[in-house]
Amino acid sequence: MLNRVRSAVAHLVSSGGTPPSRPKSPDLPKATSAPPAAAPEAPRSPPARAGAGSGAPARVVEARASFSRPTFLQLSPGGLRRADDHAGRAVQSPPDTGRRLPWSTGYAEVINAGKSRHNEDQACCEVVYVEGRRSIMGVPRDPSRGQGLCFYYWGLFDGHAGGGAAEMASRLLHRHIREQLKDLVEILQDPSPPPLCLPSTPGTPGSSDPSHLVSPQSCWSSQKEVTHESLVVGAIENAFQLMDEQMARERRGHQVEGGCCALVVVYLLGKVYVANAGDSRAIIVRNGEIIPMSREFTPETERQRLQLLGFLKPELLGGEFTHLEFPRRVQPKELGQRMLYRDQNMTGWAYKKIELEDLRFPLVCGEGKKARVMATIGVTRGLGDHNLKVCSSNLPIKPFLSCFPEVRVYDLTQYEHCPDDVLVLGTDGLWDVTSDCEVAATVDRVLSAYEPNDPSRYTALAQALVLGARGTPRDRGWRLPNNKLGSGDDISVFVIPLGGPGSYS
Amino acid sequence: MLNRVRSAVAHLVSSGGTPPSRPKSPDLPKATSAPPAAAPEAPRSPPARAGAGSGAPARVVEARASFSRPTFLQLSPGGLRRADDHAGRAVQSPPDTGRRLPWSTGYAEVINAGKSRHNEDQACCEVVYVEGRRSIMGVPRDPSRGQGLCFYYWGLFDGHAGGGAAEMASRLLHRHIREQLKDLVEILQDPSPPPLCLPSTPGTPGSSDPSHLVSPQSCWSSQKEVTHESLVVGAIENAFQLMDEQMARERRGHQVEGGCCALVVVYLLGKVYVANAGDSRAIIVRNGEIIPMSREFTPETERQRLQLLGFLKPELLGGEFTHLEFPRRVQPKELGQRMLYRDQNMTGWAYKKIELEDLRFPLVCGEGKKARVMATIGVTRGLGDHNLKVCSSNLPIKPFLSCFPEVRVYDLTQYEHCPDDVLVLGTDGLWDVTSDCEVAATVDRVLSAYEPNDPSRYTALAQALVLGARGTPRDRGWRLPNNKLGSGDDISVFVIPLGGPGSYS
Repeated sequence: MLNRVRSAVAHLVSSGGTPPSRPKSPDLPKATSAPPAAAPEAPRSPPARAGAGSGAPARVVEARASFSRPTFLQLSPGGLRRADDHAGRAVQSPPDTGRRLPWSTGYAEVINAGKSRHNEDQACCEVVYVEGRRSIMGVPRDPSRGQGLCFYYWGLFDGHAGGGAAEMASRLLHRHIREQLKDLVEILQDPSPPPLCLPSTPGTPGSSDPSHLVSPQSCWSSQKEVTHESLVVGAIENAFQLMDEQMARERRGHQVEGGCCALVVVYLLGKVYVANAGDSRAIIVRNGEIIPMSREFTPETERQRLQLLGFLKPELLGGEFTHLEFPRRVQPKELGQRMLYRDQNMTGWAYKKIELEDLRFPLVCGEGKKARVMATIGVTRGLGDHNLKVCSSNLPIKPFLSCFPEVRVYDLTQYEHCPDDVLVLGTDGLWDVTSDCEVAATVDRVLSAYEPNDPSRYTALAQALVLGARGTPRDRGWRLPNNKLGSGDDISVFVIPLGGPGSYS
Repeated sequence: MLNRVRSAVAHLVSSGGTPPSRPKSPDLPKATSAPPAAAPEAPRSPPARAGAGSGAPARVVEARASFSRPTFLQLSPGGLRRADDHAGRAVQSPPDTGRRLPWSTGYAEVINAGKSRHNEDQACCEVVYVEGRRSIMGVPRDPSRGQGLCFYYWGLFDGHAGGGAAEMASRLLHRHIREQLKDLVEILQDPSPPPLCLPSTPGTPGSSDPSHLVSPQSCWSSQKEVTHESLVVGAIENAFQLMDEQMARERRGHQVEGGCCALVVVYLLGKVYVANAGDSRAIIVRNGEIIPMSREFTPETERQRLQLLGFLKPELLGGEFTHLEFPRRVQPKELGQRMLYRDQNMTGWAYKKIELEDLRFPLVCGEGKKARVMATIGVTRGLGDHNLKVCSSNLPIKPFLSCFPEVRVYDLTQYEHCPDDVLVLGTDGLWDVTSDCEVAATVDRVLSAYEPNDPSRYTALAQALVLGARGTPRDRGWRLPNNKLGSGDDISVFVIPLGGPGSYS
């Protein structure tokens, strides 16, 4: 049975077809029970909720009533069962035998402690070849420029309200990136600045000289310079959007469950692009120094964007929410009194007289891990969530979510890297209980216990990070050495060596 | 005549009344000539343009057909003429005799080289006493808490398209801040956290115990903690908005000319609040180290905010503009070709097929000092501009401009300051030709030439900074020692000593 599902998934991956569809997980009972006012206990991941388009045929539902893990884990049916065991929470890594991940990348993951039926994190690691489209600039291709480009790709996808979106993104997002890069193969290999304008049809004969494509007459005194790097950034940004649009399309036929945060690394032509949409995190640890490579997108960090949208488009608030923020829920008896508030333009607080519409539930409420948009979701960027509605209401939340990542660029050629320099990617299961400094300390401790040329050291490091965040079962919970609770969430970690033995030249 | 104007202005300052109204400056001829397509030569400051409400009576217009400078300059009629002389560009500072500015603050300014008829920068430096409202928290006032608060205040206002807005802001903004702080006098002096809710009417007898004002039942598991500091930030933010609203109201009766950038410093209870709306800049130079205390708000730095607004409210673009950005103007003959673009979600660039509406003028265009919103204005935050319209069109630009400052806080008690540590405020006339490092070098050079307890050293420093940005007349222009052009703009500089002899305890 499991094998059948895995074969079906493998087929889908190779065909790039529709994602697996699954029934609503029975372990998500809060679907429609809690009103907005019951927000304090709302989970950071919103409850699963079937949208209007949930019409997956029963046959498919039956075949997919399970889950999949990243293919590079090469899990046997028994391994898949262990990976799905909430009680044991065994840490999973690719086998020591068999083919290593590119660059000797380390990976480890563990399932949650019962928060959701399956591990809703997904991961992908691929080397992707991009074949250029023919004669993109309208000139016969210069054979000396080679035939295509390779990029290395790592992706972590932290699902919520079901595993469908994370699974789909892990199978397809790098393909969207590849598609976006196809037009750029020649341009990126040409040291001259990118042409601002291209002929309409690639390969159109006649529009011969690329230098003529740019009109010398410009209404601005100068043209804006666009770098090769910013083209790659734009390609990744648009790939995220197209992935999200594909999820929207396909949910009409087959339910794409929930949504997911996406943290993606692309290595191309000497540069590392880190794209983040959600609350996963990437840091570089270089010679012991921490270089943040992402920031989190949550109701707190994106408060002003969300409030501005609610202010400009009040119809999105459905008369149920106010775009104003209050430090706590306003009580009806406080009408006419003055309470602290913040609007979309403010970072400070001020007092305002409470009016009737201030009694509506605030668009953004709560703090830290309990912060929520519309009392429902704790992340504000990611893929999917097209069906997500406010509890006990038909109000869609998707308009407030952004599928666009923030992309940061790190030039690998600007610094001499040693084998202990790594890029660490983790889902929030890691970062909820582990600081950047603790990760850097673990990097130092674990890597120094291995020979610099031992390729298994990065997997050992990933496992140590996951174990350190999970803890051990003690006193009715998973606990860290300091006796605090470990993370009960799914935890997934990539450790990408930046100067290690897995050469990537 | 000049004396009469100055008396009138002095009267207005003391009464907080309506601002002086002036006719359109005859040196701003581009008012309605250039179409949007003529953007490349558009000035960073938009041309003056009479709005619908320009109905100032002729008598007032006549009386105000001149200009004023900050009162603390104590200019004689002759001094005022010299300050207004574009040819000589004499640097102005408060006299060495007479009362010094608080903290021995240094100040210097110079008029532009002919860009506008008068110096459109304005400045203000005040010690402001805030008397608390009676019994704000509904309890009899505790006499031990003192009667009020003092704050120190510095403001630089860089006007454009006329001097009215800058002049009005320099007279009134600190009063708005004082009004906002009145409600907070008791709260800021009370070490316990600010109450989240206050009774409706200050001083209402009966609602006795402030601790009861906060309902213990809250729908959130915890209340958000609000700091005293964030109340001051909120007060400053709202004061900016109220100042802007006052300009909008008063232009109906008396024309408030143009708009202005506002850079304001408030020192209150040990902390320095730096509020910036526009392209002026503040830096702290401490022990030679540069600490940026503001950032600039321009069409480039606020591109995504502007584009998002144009995308969400396309009616604001009036069918004339597109919210998309292109690296140069799209030509009609390029229809169907593919050109680089960025939308509101992107930081990178990608190619898109040119469609008919891409031929509209871009909402944001140009680079650096030539960047413009709607081909008109080069700053995106500030006060005023309620009449500003797109050239040869009736499309208002104000909806794209924000009156809200970004406020940064510097805790003066967290560091031991020496007499050479200063906060430098400058309008863009300074920063256009002077880097942060050059300012820091001038700080070191000038201050080390004076005794640490010589209070005139900060004025000498402000003068040196203005002179260094203005240059000297040579080869048909004002030139710097490296022969590059100096700034032809108005230049105004405050130098605020952070640990100097002008004690501020």
